Amino acid sequence: MDNESDAELKKCMVFNAIVDNKYRSEIPDIVEMLVNSCSGRKCFEHLDSAIIPSRESLISIIDLIKDILFPGYFGDQTVDRSSLPYHIGNEIAQLFEELSKQITNSIIHDCNRYEQNCAECVDRGQEETIRFMKKLPDIRSQLASDIIAAYEGDPAAKSHDEIIFSYPGIFALMVYRAAHELHEQGISILPRIMSEHAHNLVGIDIHPGARIGKGLFIDHGTGVVIGETCEIGDNVRIYQGVTLGSLSFPKDERGELIRGEKRHPTIEDDVIIYSNATILGGRTVVGARSVIGGNVWLTKSVPPDTKVIIEEPRLIFKEKR
Amino acid sequence: MDNESDAELKKCMVFNAIVDNKYRSEIPDIVEMLVNSCSGRKCFEHLDSAIIPSRESLISIIDLIKDILFPGYFGDQTVDRSSLPYHIGNEIAQLFEELSKQITNSIIHDCNRYEQNCAECVDRGQEETIRFMKKLPDIRSQLASDIIAAYEGDPAAKSHDEIIFSYPGIFALMVYRAAHELHEQGISILPRIMSEHAHNLVGIDIHPGARIGKGLFIDHGTGVVIGETCEIGDNVRIYQGVTLGSLSFPKDERGELIRGEKRHPTIEDDVIIYSNATILGGRTVVGARSVIGGNVWLTKSVPPDTKVIIEEPRLIFKEKR
Amino acid sequence: MDNESDAELKKCMVFNAIVDNKYRSEIPDIVEMLVNSCSGRKCFEHLDSAIIPSRESLISIIDLIKDILFPGYFGDQTVDRSSLPYHIGNEIAQLFEELSKQITNSIIHDCNRYEQNCAECVDRGQEETIRFMKKLPDIRSQLASDIIAAYEGDPAAKSHDEIIFSYPGIFALMVYRAAHELHEQGISILPRIMSEHAHNLVGIDIHPGARIGKGLFIDHGTGVVIGETCEIGDNVRIYQGVTLGSLSFPKDERGELIRGEKRHPTIEDDVIIYSNATILGGRTVVGARSVIGGNVWLTKSVPPDTKVIIEEPRLIFKEKR
Repeated sequence: MDNESDAELKKCMVFNAIVDNKYRSEIPDIVEMLVNSCSGRKCFEHLDSAIIPSRESLISIIDLIKDILFPGYFGDQTVDRSSLPYHIGNEIAQLFEELSKQITNSIIHDCNRYEQNCAECVDRGQEETIRFMKKLPDIRSQLASDIIAAYEGDPAAKSHDEIIFSYPGIFALMVYRAAHELHEQGISILPRIMSEHAHNLVGIDIHPGARIGKGLFIDHGTGVVIGETCEIGDNVRIYQGVTLGSLSFPKDERGELIRGEKRHPTIEDDVIIYSNATILGGRTVVGARSVIGGNVWLTKSVPPDTKVIIEEPRLIFKEKR
Repeated sequence: MDNESDAELKKCMVFNAIVDNKYRSEIPDIVEMLVNSCSGRKCFEHLDSAIIPSRESLISIIDLIKDILFPGYFGDQTVDRSSLPYHIGNEIAQLFEELSKQITNSIIHDCNRYEQNCAECVDRGQEETIRFMKKLPDIRSQLASDIIAAYEGDPAAKSHDEIIFSYPGIFALMVYRAAHELHEQGISILPRIMSEHAHNLVGIDIHPGARIGKGLFIDHGTGVVIGETCEIGDNVRIYQGVTLGSLSFPKDERGELIRGEKRHPTIEDDVIIYSNATILGGRTVVGARSVIGGNVWLTKSVPPDTKVIIEEPRLIFKEKR
Repeated sequence: MDNESDAELKKCMVFNAIVDNKYRSEIPDIVEMLVNSCSGRKCFEHLDSAIIPSRESLISIIDLIKDILFPGYFGDQTVDRSSLPYHIGNEIAQLFEELSKQITNSIIHDCNRYEQNCAECVDRGQEETIRFMKKLPDIRSQLASDIIAAYEGDPAAKSHDEIIFSYPGIFALMVYRAAHELHEQGISILPRIMSEHAHNLVGIDIHPGARIGKGLFIDHGTGVVIGETCEIGDNVRIYQGVTLGSLSFPKDERGELIRGEKRHPTIEDDVIIYSNATILGGRTVVGARSVIGGNVWLTKSVPPDTKVIIEEPRLIFKEKR
């Protein structure tokens, strides 16, 4: 650190107050160790740079989007049709304030990283927010197709309402479809924090870069992974634990990691993939109307109308105890 | 919308305040688009109808139940035996207030949906709450059998205490056993929101409709799915990623989805199911004392005392690099 | 309960206030039932004993550790280098206050359980806290190796920053590496609550007792289980749904559960384990540079440089509909 003694002084000021017993008296040395030991690849700091969009604000943004897309389903008061414009209006105004701030943070963060001129950042932040909000009706109708697919795909669903307020797959798709639009607008950081928030909540990990058609039904969903360069057609059904990932056995790699190329599979229309199936590789295509059985490990393409299953398990009859 | 110009007027009033720059000035059109574009199957609204039980209140209800069933384990002060009646008494009183409100919401929500007379709803809400609270001692002793099963089934468990305050399976079973009783009482919505809350927290998805005997041990649990019509006997052990689901390959379906019939397997007493095994189908019965190996995909019944395993994996020896 | 009538009296006092309708009037009996029905193995109470470290305080402790190890990445204001000593200093001081309280609770809890003399508990709580805080620089550099491994192992990672603020595996490893040090210091309870908190948030279940080398990359991570007696070498890569667990088919058990012996596998350096693979058993060793394919179920050792995969799945071509 450039100005050692200065920092020493500061630490003294900080600790005069709290240093009052034999253990607390060791604290300043620990602080100094932490401040001064960070060098090279031994640790990571994020100093003197723009703040990263906070997860807390992201959560309230996602709640606002949820209320706007599904008016009356969440929150603790009835929404009546006559006051709907007030309701949506207030929430859209809030969304603009909060989202434009976070989008601006993301833009400034990139600006600093690449030492670009940041004069336009705030302006662009608001512009991108408006662009995003104009897509909300489309996002809403895509989600409607997902809800209908869930109702038609799950005998346990008693109503469309139940799906909207309790199905984790719908929540994950709502966050994905919003994050994907921001990702398409070239906003960095923010979409990934959004998708990780959904991942934390419902255990479904959909990268904002994936391309997903309408009417996707993810049932139960815990452990589902949909990679950055996946392409999924319309009316696909996916169960818990399914991975659509990249294939990277050492021999398949040519030294350096290449970032950005298609590494994840393509799933055509009307495919069903049962629980814990794993489908890997950027050249792997699962043809339309195919059914992938549970616990399958697939790294090659299959033609349309194929059923892929693992061998029957072996039965062993135990001697009675 | 019935009264267009009226709504226009309202929006103006709402936005005069906030419209103060070139981007904000676009907000009213976005609101109008959102308010007016929702029609047919393009989106879902929940207007002019009873509110849905809120997840926030559900969380405090679940915390109350946790404290009542396991006095002294949670919360930040010691509970001594002499004050136990106070402690339980206050929490039961709170539980009655909060739970009866949410049960009433669920009942009113159904009333509205089916346009029934709702005069009795509040009364019935309180009645059902009392009925539920009278079952708490039974729920507590069922959970005791689960805790004992966990201690006897897991060498990593150092004490019964550790299981109670840190095992996700016990939390999931506590929420399930409470939600199941409400489900049996014919309360809708609420039990599903409860089970989804547990699913979010610990990744274990148990439908309130499932029937589960005593002494179930769910170890680790992430990704476990236990479907609506499952029947599980006594002293069963289940590991992470296990699915007890429905079998619905296209050919097995006769056009329409039939809701309510038994679609999920029956697991008899003393069965062990290892991680990531998948057992599907309403006619599938796993006989008593059977052991289902990890990553097995089972869609047929097996007799008692059977061990079911997949083939040994293939070994390939890589050429040294 | 020793003093029945006394408790009766108390309950009356408690309920005079709230008993005001036909349903509420049933509450006292429910309370009495709950207070008096708890006996033998029918339920668990934690009365007259030390409080258990609260999860709420644990969460703020973990947030403090996160900010100290990764200054400037989280929180809502820029941290500049010149004020870093203030920033770290204040957080270390807070960490000392909160962590020493919780460590002391854990120590007192054990004291009571084993009826030891507890005179030294508070003193020892502070001593162990200082001991732990002195390890923070080492924990930070171990995490740096994990972050570098993630960047080198995942083409989807755009920067080291993205990994730090959005990768669940890094969060789980941060909590593990901190909890492991406390576990090594002989602190009970606290480390398990920490690991379960991480498990709840990101679905990755790493027991604080496991031994993990540097440069571990856990990608996606949902459903990963790393057992108490696992040993993992350097530069290992693990994908979602992987279990490193104990093998306990009934026939392998000799009556009683033995606690503490090595029950979980050893993974040598540079091994890759793909999604949903399950590796079990304390004598199972996966040799260096081996690759375990997805959905493999492995209960035997494999030599170095081995590739282990399951059979190709079967393809069935459906008759066109």
